[in-house]
Amino acid sequence: MSDLAGRLDRCSINTATLGYQLPIGQTIEAVARAGFGAIAPWRRELEGESARLVSRRIRDAGLTVSGYCRSTYIPAASDTEFAENIEDNRRAIDDAAELGAACFVMVVGGLPQGSKDLADARRQVRDGIARLLEHAGAQNVPLAIEPLHPMYAADRACINTLRQALDLCDALDPSQTGTVGVAVDLYHVWWDPDLKTQILRAGHSKRLLGFHLCDWLVPTNDMLLDRGMMGDGVIDIHGVRRHIEASGYAGRLEVEIFSRDNWWKRPATEVLEVCAQRLQTVC
Amino acid sequence: MSDLAGRLDRCSINTATLGYQLPIGQTIEAVARAGFGAIAPWRRELEGESARLVSRRIRDAGLTVSGYCRSTYIPAASDTEFAENIEDNRRAIDDAAELGAACFVMVVGGLPQGSKDLADARRQVRDGIARLLEHAGAQNVPLAIEPLHPMYAADRACINTLRQALDLCDALDPSQTGTVGVAVDLYHVWWDPDLKTQILRAGHSKRLLGFHLCDWLVPTNDMLLDRGMMGDGVIDIHGVRRHIEASGYAGRLEVEIFSRDNWWKRPATEVLEVCAQRLQTVC
Repeated sequence: MSDLAGRLDRCSINTATLGYQLPIGQTIEAVARAGFGAIAPWRRELEGESARLVSRRIRDAGLTVSGYCRSTYIPAASDTEFAENIEDNRRAIDDAAELGAACFVMVVGGLPQGSKDLADARRQVRDGIARLLEHAGAQNVPLAIEPLHPMYAADRACINTLRQALDLCDALDPSQTGTVGVAVDLYHVWWDPDLKTQILRAGHSKRLLGFHLCDWLVPTNDMLLDRGMMGDGVIDIHGVRRHIEASGYAGRLEVEIFSRDNWWKRPATEVLEVCAQRLQTVC
Repeated sequence: MSDLAGRLDRCSINTATLGYQLPIGQTIEAVARAGFGAIAPWRRELEGESARLVSRRIRDAGLTVSGYCRSTYIPAASDTEFAENIEDNRRAIDDAAELGAACFVMVVGGLPQGSKDLADARRQVRDGIARLLEHAGAQNVPLAIEPLHPMYAADRACINTLRQALDLCDALDPSQTGTVGVAVDLYHVWWDPDLKTQILRAGHSKRLLGFHLCDWLVPTNDMLLDRGMMGDGVIDIHGVRRHIEASGYAGRLEVEIFSRDNWWKRPATEVLEVCAQRLQTVC
């Protein structure tokens, strides 16, 4: 039995897990009713809503915000587009602040249209985040760089290992102000032979801002939308969580499952029930 | 214009590129007729054939063998199965020797059925290759460990980066006898921020035994069978080849494309013609 039994207050639901079936208000109620302590909403759910009102609803429901998803991709084919991407992220950081989010999740983007220059995309990411740091610090919203699985290097994120993300943090914030760190998502990093070492490094440098859970299915039928529920795949979730917590991480354990053909087809209440059960038994 | 213009003799065709449509004899003729200098056959093509006769046909056609594909997966759920896997690889090494292959390509295998213990699978791979080294040395067949893309960590290969493969080589063969090295396949490693450094390292330690080319398509519609023809994707192929050759690699440039819904549906002659054209213009 996991030591999470009876401790759903330590756990969070990333709303993507529910497939965006419900308006944000109902999602908040459902997550709170299921006993979770936190929620991680997406920007698309706040479109046409007041961040302040959503924030109040979340707090009234007794929840905190474990993270706000997610950044506009940074690398661009032109300077104008690059500047727009930065500005877009600045506004999102304002909303993250309004929500009291523990972090703003940075999925940094991949190659600009027509480019084969990964090194340049990575330079743009570094420069882009550098331009956001002061604003993030002023708003008290830590930026959580999320390394994405290497299979997304071209089209979603050119930061692909925890080591690379931490190297970037060190370059951007050598004095460890806490303004920039990492979000560790099991799906993206579980395979990495360097994982344990880098988790320890992240802990020592106070860079662990988020921890996302799901599972890797065999076979995986879709590169984006076939993540598994914890326990249904091959990831040693408990083992990684032990390292994360031994490194000093005291934040929420956030469930984030993209599953078009399975979990997204089920009612939110059922999905939340299974998440709660698995968190308390296999994580 | 690439410096490969007029130098198809430096290039090899991995027979998987042709979708195994023809019997090995016809494949050998087609590859030779198209002007390539080498071929990399698969074990499935030698089933029911005499390795000695196939070897003679390859030589008679004026080709060499850039690599023999590929190892039986090593990690197993039981000691008996593990021993069988080793024995199977020993026999394949004998065939590689008969073919005069420049290397035996090691796709090492992932998690045994029911296991979530990647570290144990990796230990089994190390122990298994250690048991093959003497035989490989005696047969004069270098073992080329191929790091596979992290998306195959569970089911195909738990060696997932060039750094990890080279660490394994160093552990297995600290005195650099040449019996074990790596095959660098662009598809698996192109995303790696550490790639250039590790290619240099492989070159310095004389571990570069093979170099495989294809491209990464955006979008990729199948995790295994949707590789792109060089030039159709986002990999900076010429850039990586420059590093590989600057590191002292003088082996063949081997085209290996798994493409169920595109190239495998076309006649071998057409595929070979396009390979030849792209090698000479975009690689």
